[in-house]
Amino acid sequence: MTTGAKLAGQTLAEQKLYDDFAAEHMVPLWTQIGNLMPASPAPTAAPHVWRWSVLYPLAERAGELIPVGRGGERRAISLANPGFKGLPYATPTLWAAIQYLGPREEAPEHRHSQNAFRFVIEGEGVWTVVDGDPVAMRRGDFLLTPGWAYHGHQNATDHPMAWLDGLDIPFVHLTDSAFFELGPDTLANRDTPRRSRSERLWAHPGLRPVSSTGTQYPKSPLAAYRWEHTDAALRAQLELEDEGHPGVAEPGHAAIRFTNPATGGDVMPTIRAEFHRLCPGTVTQVRREVGSSVFQVFQGSGVAVVNGTEHQLEPGDLVVIPSWSTFEFGAAGSGVDLFRFSDTPIFERLCQDRVQIGA
Amino acid sequence: MTTGAKLAGQTLAEQKLYDDFAAEHMVPLWTQIGNLMPASPAPTAAPHVWRWSVLYPLAERAGELIPVGRGGERRAISLANPGFKGLPYATPTLWAAIQYLGPREEAPEHRHSQNAFRFVIEGEGVWTVVDGDPVAMRRGDFLLTPGWAYHGHQNATDHPMAWLDGLDIPFVHLTDSAFFELGPDTLANRDTPRRSRSERLWAHPGLRPVSSTGTQYPKSPLAAYRWEHTDAALRAQLELEDEGHPGVAEPGHAAIRFTNPATGGDVMPTIRAEFHRLCPGTVTQVRREVGSSVFQVFQGSGVAVVNGTEHQLEPGDLVVIPSWSTFEFGAAGSGVDLFRFSDTPIFERLCQDRVQIGA
Amino acid sequence: MTTGAKLAGQTLAEQKLYDDFAAEHMVPLWTQIGNLMPASPAPTAAPHVWRWSVLYPLAERAGELIPVGRGGERRAISLANPGFKGLPYATPTLWAAIQYLGPREEAPEHRHSQNAFRFVIEGEGVWTVVDGDPVAMRRGDFLLTPGWAYHGHQNATDHPMAWLDGLDIPFVHLTDSAFFELGPDTLANRDTPRRSRSERLWAHPGLRPVSSTGTQYPKSPLAAYRWEHTDAALRAQLELEDEGHPGVAEPGHAAIRFTNPATGGDVMPTIRAEFHRLCPGTVTQVRREVGSSVFQVFQGSGVAVVNGTEHQLEPGDLVVIPSWSTFEFGAAGSGVDLFRFSDTPIFERLCQDRVQIGA
Amino acid sequence: MTTGAKLAGQTLAEQKLYDDFAAEHMVPLWTQIGNLMPASPAPTAAPHVWRWSVLYPLAERAGELIPVGRGGERRAISLANPGFKGLPYATPTLWAAIQYLGPREEAPEHRHSQNAFRFVIEGEGVWTVVDGDPVAMRRGDFLLTPGWAYHGHQNATDHPMAWLDGLDIPFVHLTDSAFFELGPDTLANRDTPRRSRSERLWAHPGLRPVSSTGTQYPKSPLAAYRWEHTDAALRAQLELEDEGHPGVAEPGHAAIRFTNPATGGDVMPTIRAEFHRLCPGTVTQVRREVGSSVFQVFQGSGVAVVNGTEHQLEPGDLVVIPSWSTFEFGAAGSGVDLFRFSDTPIFERLCQDRVQIGA
Repeated sequence: MTTGAKLAGQTLAEQKLYDDFAAEHMVPLWTQIGNLMPASPAPTAAPHVWRWSVLYPLAERAGELIPVGRGGERRAISLANPGFKGLPYATPTLWAAIQYLGPREEAPEHRHSQNAFRFVIEGEGVWTVVDGDPVAMRRGDFLLTPGWAYHGHQNATDHPMAWLDGLDIPFVHLTDSAFFELGPDTLANRDTPRRSRSERLWAHPGLRPVSSTGTQYPKSPLAAYRWEHTDAALRAQLELEDEGHPGVAEPGHAAIRFTNPATGGDVMPTIRAEFHRLCPGTVTQVRREVGSSVFQVFQGSGVAVVNGTEHQLEPGDLVVIPSWSTFEFGAAGSGVDLFRFSDTPIFERLCQDRVQIGA
Repeated sequence: MTTGAKLAGQTLAEQKLYDDFAAEHMVPLWTQIGNLMPASPAPTAAPHVWRWSVLYPLAERAGELIPVGRGGERRAISLANPGFKGLPYATPTLWAAIQYLGPREEAPEHRHSQNAFRFVIEGEGVWTVVDGDPVAMRRGDFLLTPGWAYHGHQNATDHPMAWLDGLDIPFVHLTDSAFFELGPDTLANRDTPRRSRSERLWAHPGLRPVSSTGTQYPKSPLAAYRWEHTDAALRAQLELEDEGHPGVAEPGHAAIRFTNPATGGDVMPTIRAEFHRLCPGTVTQVRREVGSSVFQVFQGSGVAVVNGTEHQLEPGDLVVIPSWSTFEFGAAGSGVDLFRFSDTPIFERLCQDRVQIGA
Repeated sequence: MTTGAKLAGQTLAEQKLYDDFAAEHMVPLWTQIGNLMPASPAPTAAPHVWRWSVLYPLAERAGELIPVGRGGERRAISLANPGFKGLPYATPTLWAAIQYLGPREEAPEHRHSQNAFRFVIEGEGVWTVVDGDPVAMRRGDFLLTPGWAYHGHQNATDHPMAWLDGLDIPFVHLTDSAFFELGPDTLANRDTPRRSRSERLWAHPGLRPVSSTGTQYPKSPLAAYRWEHTDAALRAQLELEDEGHPGVAEPGHAAIRFTNPATGGDVMPTIRAEFHRLCPGTVTQVRREVGSSVFQVFQGSGVAVVNGTEHQLEPGDLVVIPSWSTFEFGAAGSGVDLFRFSDTPIFERLCQDRVQIGA
Repeated sequence: MTTGAKLAGQTLAEQKLYDDFAAEHMVPLWTQIGNLMPASPAPTAAPHVWRWSVLYPLAERAGELIPVGRGGERRAISLANPGFKGLPYATPTLWAAIQYLGPREEAPEHRHSQNAFRFVIEGEGVWTVVDGDPVAMRRGDFLLTPGWAYHGHQNATDHPMAWLDGLDIPFVHLTDSAFFELGPDTLANRDTPRRSRSERLWAHPGLRPVSSTGTQYPKSPLAAYRWEHTDAALRAQLELEDEGHPGVAEPGHAAIRFTNPATGGDVMPTIRAEFHRLCPGTVTQVRREVGSSVFQVFQGSGVAVVNGTEHQLEPGDLVVIPSWSTFEFGAAGSGVDLFRFSDTPIFERLCQDRVQIGA
């Protein structure tokens, strides 16, 4: 008789044993193994789509009602995965939020061990000040705030601005590795340059400052990845495809990864970020990966099929793909541009990564 | 007025906004930030001591009542951290269990993505068969079952045997990266050699098979770390200290780390394992580290002070140290030997490690 | 009496012993140690300056007299260090040559294990075709031909063009690791695009093709580093210096390193390449380094002081710095731009690197 | 007409051009390319065998005639490859010498950037003192003196002792990276322990001192690899082969590599060391490799076939294999044990390695 079968009808002795386990803070494996050690990942997180047409008005209302300042720190509203019963996590490892800053508002400086980025779906006029370096935020840009860098934001214009924040807050929380420190209440630097100092030093293709070579860069020293470069790189891949040369990720599908120019690796140790462009009519191969992702539609429209369920996507919409869920994307007649971030570096660095391509 | 202050008395409009957030699966950061992003790690896990004098009799009773076999797979009883309200986790990342195998019993073969090890506090007579290689388990030995290696156990004697199992089950569960496959119902190999094939190939100091050099070893190819080597290495450090030479971790405190001989790094990508010997009267420096640990007393007795609370320790007792808790150990008159495992490689590989030494 | 002293007056028995050594292909260390194992590097290579005003006319004459084609392969004339008695090596590890291609000429395809680059001091109109990808060569550009890539050149214009070739020919020759294969006699591709395919895929700051992530890049996948980027990066460093921010290598001295965008490391495993800009009046700190370098003046004029001897430098002039020689550079009133290549990666990878800064 | 063809009959203008090249320290590539860039490595070094029966008596005579001491430093007699016309190099990168120390003699302390090892073919009684740590030398042992470690030797017995020294002297000399410093004239430590302190800390299979984990070990921290471990590892591989399990390098051929226990990599950045055991009658597969090797017969006898020429081998005989030479070894009726060292890490680290197996 196997352990599993035995559990159906417990004897009194067994009942007593289980009670004694509980009293001593012990739990038997044999009653839990199916749940703890499933045949393949069985995420609590659910695939889900959040609509920009819903999020943005909510953020606007928050802008009217909720001040930004010391204590609350940021007017950021996070995606709370429906599978998590109210926890403010997009996935078990990733946080995704819409942050909203009204005209002339400032978010005060702080730093934390969590790694953070911003992706700008629309608008401009905010500068995020990272370790004293003001970084302009404009449509299509991908901006970094690596762990333990001081940062605050200022809106230097008379119109509000909203953007996507991505962090590893859930992962850091679950693993008890969070540190946080307040900085000055007012911004260190209110300059509004077009390019940050980090870009002036690092955003030259294939070049690095000789002065940088003595130090290590586990996190990217480049604070901003500008839309014009991302767009140019994607266009070039598709042109190369038209000319019969390699470069695209798959037919009709251009894709770049944002990287740390000091290493060629991911921008931050826990977060991967990519940009994908699908030509009109293109459908990607079905994939499943260990680890979770969030996609945001940047422009165009299309469809996501996650675990067999189809979701229509419009600009700004966000889709969460839990671990080991099947997913594919399709582009409508105008094509679609997708920003993606994921926790893949965690699994690659810990040798737990797996990818399955094709049905 | 700051965000924080505002929360005390919500207006109706604010109430409506929060309700709408909830309806759309969104959660504001400003009401959660203190909890999500504390100044330093605020573990849910509690420091706790489990007594071998309690655990072993419970395991014995399980041996009488609960069969081992397909379905339940293992007669393992896990430490359930009191902070976790019944979850079978020692810490948010680590699983620790006492496993018990009766005379002539077998635990069937399976494999899983979780990394596992065994540490033998007492007894002998069981062979764990790892990818077909029978590995004898004896007192003081540290044995590996890296992720995705098939393994089963057999007790080849007429007396029962119990040992400590350590795995990264909680981490793998929380990050949705678990895979599991059943192997044959009966053991691949019932040989009972003194040394495993892996030791015959790899347990030669500073030597590796030339035949191994074309492959990668993210996980150690050595399945067994024998007590006689551990003990000799610890003794040598203390003798060197007596002679005035470096080697010990701190005065009166010898310590070795179990490593992957193919890389010199940790035995598995998520788990570090060490052995510490404190001379009579030695007290270690106070430390705190990002990440959690479990210590088991191997022999001797002493005291652990965790977050300022003192716990007396006897052979076999297990202490859990949550992340960023202060801890120090002291040895009684006979000295004390401590086995330790931790999740430190996770933090080192993801650049989230911190250590603070001294009060 | 020491070995050294003994050597002055040999006995007959000693003489006989030395003869017997020689007959058996043996050499005693004690008579050679001062030469073989000096207190610090004692290069055979001498510091030397080659004048562009001399080199270019010689290359022109070669263009008139010597055809380019299969067999000789390239119309390249190498710097032969005066210390080497006719060997065509700039240093023990590095080859530097002026290559000259007349109007409408072609150099046929071949490949070799030696790593190569081109640096363009003046002119344009030649395309080097690297593994089928035509790469335009223009003033100020740094172009790569990593080891074992097929390559040929064509001059698509009616005027000649000359440039600097740098390779690790001496190192590869001395270590017996040279491989060479002829390719087709005619160029694979006579297109003359402004940008190579490699640039279209890789010359986007901080971005890499997702399609590239499954492969390794010990050598840079980027074939061209354009002058406009180099110049912009150097200007930015000096502007940052003016604004009081870090970035320059030392006061008045901007410097970038050409890197492999897939790794952030050197462009090729044996060759480092950099570009240095000195503001008018700037004098660099005195340095000495293990390994040898070649500098070429790109524009402006100045002075090099090598092992205490001063050399005036004009555009195109080449200076060789042997290992562990002291060197410093000074800029005349117009400032000076210097291209540099060196064998430093060899020493860094083999843990033999040393640098001494200051007098 | 090709460049190559042109060279046969030079015109006067060409002659003048070549003279002008020479006057300006320039050399054309087209007259040299076949020599500089051969189709495959064309070593100047020749395969050669040195006989122990010849070497040892020569070393003995040196022992009688040549004192050891400051100035000459060591009574070492190097293998001078016949291809090198008197240069004391076994290969372009490797030095191999027989060192001889008479009864009660001492070799004074010094250090150098060259990496060194000793291999003991016979005898015992000498201690090499490495950074103050006395390391006993016994038959079959492999001992390290990594670059820049102070070291001296003492013979603590009344009989002489000879052994094989291996260094990267030629490589360091050719690349101008040599540094050398004298230490005290008398030995720092005249203790004669059976085991060095480095072994007491590091020679435990799979274990490392926790105290070592904050530092880097580009060179092995383990000073001695003892014959009993080497022999046991080789025996185990052959026993596993008999039992039908993997482990041997090829049928009848056991082989281990000496490694840095802190990294699992080669013992030193420029030198690989291995030990090979061929069962009676075993013939290895034909190989060729980029880089050069020296083999020494430790015990048994056999045959080496290098570039098609067969050499009979007896204990102590040394064979040099130049780069890209074909080689195979065969064992006579008693089997043969071969110590090997090579410069392979240079090529692997610089991405110039190639291996060809089979005819």
